[in-house]
Amino acid sequence: MGAKRAEIISIGTEILIGSILNTNARFLSETLARHGIDVYHQVTVGDNPSRIIECFDAAARRSDIVIASGGLGPTEDDVTMLALSRFLGKGLVLHRPTYQAILRRLKKRKLSMTRLIAKQCFVPKDSILFTNENGTAPGVLNHRIYQGRQKWFLVLPGPPRELERMFVQEALPALVRAAKIEREHFVVRSVKISGLLETQVAQKVTDLLKQKPPLTVGIYAKPDEVELKIMAKSSSGPRAAAMADKTEKIIRRRLKEKIFGVDQESMASAVGKLLKKKKLFLSVAESCTGGFLSKSITEIPGSSDYYRGGIVAYDNRVKIQQLKVPETLIRKHGAVSSQTAKKMAQNVRAIFKTDFGIGITGIAGPSGGSKRKPVGLVYIAIAGAQGTRGSENFFFGSRPEIQERASHKALDLLRQLLLA
Amino acid sequence: MGAKRAEIISIGTEILIGSILNTNARFLSETLARHGIDVYHQVTVGDNPSRIIECFDAAARRSDIVIASGGLGPTEDDVTMLALSRFLGKGLVLHRPTYQAILRRLKKRKLSMTRLIAKQCFVPKDSILFTNENGTAPGVLNHRIYQGRQKWFLVLPGPPRELERMFVQEALPALVRAAKIEREHFVVRSVKISGLLETQVAQKVTDLLKQKPPLTVGIYAKPDEVELKIMAKSSSGPRAAAMADKTEKIIRRRLKEKIFGVDQESMASAVGKLLKKKKLFLSVAESCTGGFLSKSITEIPGSSDYYRGGIVAYDNRVKIQQLKVPETLIRKHGAVSSQTAKKMAQNVRAIFKTDFGIGITGIAGPSGGSKRKPVGLVYIAIAGAQGTRGSENFFFGSRPEIQERASHKALDLLRQLLLA
Repeated sequence: MGAKRAEIISIGTEILIGSILNTNARFLSETLARHGIDVYHQVTVGDNPSRIIECFDAAARRSDIVIASGGLGPTEDDVTMLALSRFLGKGLVLHRPTYQAILRRLKKRKLSMTRLIAKQCFVPKDSILFTNENGTAPGVLNHRIYQGRQKWFLVLPGPPRELERMFVQEALPALVRAAKIEREHFVVRSVKISGLLETQVAQKVTDLLKQKPPLTVGIYAKPDEVELKIMAKSSSGPRAAAMADKTEKIIRRRLKEKIFGVDQESMASAVGKLLKKKKLFLSVAESCTGGFLSKSITEIPGSSDYYRGGIVAYDNRVKIQQLKVPETLIRKHGAVSSQTAKKMAQNVRAIFKTDFGIGITGIAGPSGGSKRKPVGLVYIAIAGAQGTRGSENFFFGSRPEIQERASHKALDLLRQLLLA
Repeated sequence: MGAKRAEIISIGTEILIGSILNTNARFLSETLARHGIDVYHQVTVGDNPSRIIECFDAAARRSDIVIASGGLGPTEDDVTMLALSRFLGKGLVLHRPTYQAILRRLKKRKLSMTRLIAKQCFVPKDSILFTNENGTAPGVLNHRIYQGRQKWFLVLPGPPRELERMFVQEALPALVRAAKIEREHFVVRSVKISGLLETQVAQKVTDLLKQKPPLTVGIYAKPDEVELKIMAKSSSGPRAAAMADKTEKIIRRRLKEKIFGVDQESMASAVGKLLKKKKLFLSVAESCTGGFLSKSITEIPGSSDYYRGGIVAYDNRVKIQQLKVPETLIRKHGAVSSQTAKKMAQNVRAIFKTDFGIGITGIAGPSGGSKRKPVGLVYIAIAGAQGTRGSENFFFGSRPEIQERASHKALDLLRQLLLA
């Protein structure tokens, strides 16, 4: 059958007016990419039957598989199933098991069936249905001959929690079977680099960036990192993986400790892995980051293996009373100073009895900046058995961006120390 | 000229393979909506000249204004300007001021001009250019007669920091002038509700949800809240605002204190406003949320007016030594217990000398759960002058979701207390 091309149609006026981020398109695209199914177009359209039908039509012309999401809910606005039924030329029929399931769900919550809720039980004739374990509206797979070729239409509910489970566990396997998709094996691997500009990274891998499929390397600049994305494609899974491995090795040889992680690995998980391996413990004292650093560390499952806790010393009184930073030191150098950051790091390390202590103090803005100490100025210190290291930084961006960048930098500094 | 219809084209293979979230489409849509410019389609296409031209063509057929972003960078992949030049039938010409500006930028960083960087200085003939204050590639506005009508093409750089400033400060005003857009005034207002299900909210505003333009109300369920979105449209700005105000009042009358905020107001900013007004101070002691609650509070500019700080008591030793939770209490009831949460709240309030103290302890998962104390079980306590209130919660979701939900709930409980 050859490679199939998929197209994603996101349905919802709230996406068109910018009220919500289209995370479904990303999730579906990423999952399809991992299954070697190409996506050449993503389209977003409002809750309008004729425009939805136009999109189905354009998609059927250029793609083999159309995956639409949204507009399956119980309100008058939700017209996706109606549009699909008209486009396929197949009437809507009641699906009894779905009706029964919704009735049971409603009973549990002591609610009763209404016309609008019942609407969700009507699907185009000949549909394959997918149960919605996290909501009411079922998903639907149907098909139609278009310009002499079989085209597949998968319609999924809009809420990500409902869509994601349904797609991965039921709809995608059914689609692969029904559309006889020959699985191409597609290995995507992101190598994450910190402490270098995009151009500096590019210079080290110019040759790799020029490679053509089946193995390509792309470069992407993120706020705190540069990412090299290896994409390897093959009819054999192990071969695709071997190609990716080989390229990753080349990149590692050239960028060494500038690489902090691969794929889902974040800076916090990379640092966590090192701490855990060395059986070391960490505590933090943060002022301008206000809990962001602590949150980044504890987002990682198992962080209790190396993280004891922290003090958010937002008010100077907390710096003085809880963290025992001498009042005279703050008066002399200021709360935002290298000296204060170092004292915070040393004292939280002593108080929490950990191997390392991190101290952060700065000006996250938007107010509070001055000419001498502008918004974005952040002092970071790391105290360890070998002494205390300080770092002066000027971060740009909004308040939460500065908090994020400072936390990221603090973790990267600790990572460098752990590697040294 | 009447109302113009805009279409957004996001260009970038990294969006099609799901590597990045398309935040630009959201930002552009939201900004256009606030200016009363309708967006009926959003499209994403890869870095492929012929497919980009196809999208320009389809967009010109159904829309008056086409806003494309991405693919302006200095790599071989970046082909948007080439595609635009071909589609418009206007050759690429060197823009000297951009070339000079890039040269200066490079000099500062001690880098030299290359062929690929120079590529960014070539734009289609007759273009209006927008300087990129946060990067190198300029933005471009151009036009073409299509089926007898003037169609406008705006092309912006992909990185959000570059795109956002350029669009708001330069490109949108230039577009409004050039395309003679009659500004329709569009007021969008989100009323945010917590503590009720979507269906419960819907029941209270059934009549409003049925309204037709120029004034409509939509309902959206988010993980921690339900949102009612008022959309009012008029040729007069004050009239649109008055319509929105009137509807907001009706909603407020019906949902009262279940409403925690409007538009950008988050739960944390709503609580902050109340604390500030009443001149009260807050501190927190968090275990399973690991800094998330503190981070949510300090994300709000000016939070130092009511937030003293917190202790992240991730390890039990921190609960015992810093928070002075009696070891016997933990041994008897467990670290995850209503009793521990209450003691944490009371003690952090005493230690930090604040009016309120919040204590959170629970199991964020993915491991650490048991039959009696499953993942998602979170105890929240709030200590104040009137005593201590506890709350037992079962949250679903991933580890970061549970951390977020628990933080949200803690703030909502405090909000209810402050309103009582």
